[in-house]
Amino acid sequence: MSQYNNVSVVKQANVYFEGKVTSRAVIFEDGTKVTLGIMLPGEYEFGTSQKEIMDIQSGELSVLLPGKSDWLEITEPQAFEVPANASFKLKVRTVTDYICSYLD
Amino acid sequence: MSQYNNVSVVKQANVYFEGKVTSRAVIFEDGTKVTLGIMLPGEYEFGTSQKEIMDIQSGELSVLLPGKSDWLEITEPQAFEVPANASFKLKVRTVTDYICSYLD
Repeated sequence: MSQYNNVSVVKQANVYFEGKVTSRAVIFEDGTKVTLGIMLPGEYEFGTSQKEIMDIQSGELSVLLPGKSDWLEITEPQAFEVPANASFKLKVRTVTDYICSYLD
Repeated sequence: MSQYNNVSVVKQANVYFEGKVTSRAVIFEDGTKVTLGIMLPGEYEFGTSQKEIMDIQSGELSVLLPGKSDWLEITEPQAFEVPANASFKLKVRTVTDYICSYLD
């Protein structure tokens, strides 16, 4: 069972798109943060302030990264990176469990 | 910002009802566990194996506890207890953020 140890977890969820996307913040001892999130099927656009790594733990979705014209098709666990101050689009086909890491 | 400190968090989400109910397990140093969950609007029935305390952090819902004929109406943060080996019904009207504790 893969887990994070010796972390803090914020009790209150982050809720987007009327709850179709939700996440929980996990904070490490060094102050860095990840969010553990769920996306239900739907189409979404997100903006970044920091560089992000989205690690898809499970789910099937298509991702349009900034500056790209081709959608990235994800059908098995896979990570992708999004630059800071950018936006990206997602077409989520099945319930998607993800980990988002924020990099400076 | 209310948070749990010095805990472990399981990376993989628990997914129920096609993702309309999801939760993440948080494990304390003494081995006890809570789950932090989200319920989207809908009607659900859950069974318990252990006694549970459901602490509604936000959301509006009605709860039918085992052996009761009247629904409990929840419109502000409130907790309720469910005995072990029982089932209870929920009518969730708005996105609901909850903490479930498991007692022996």
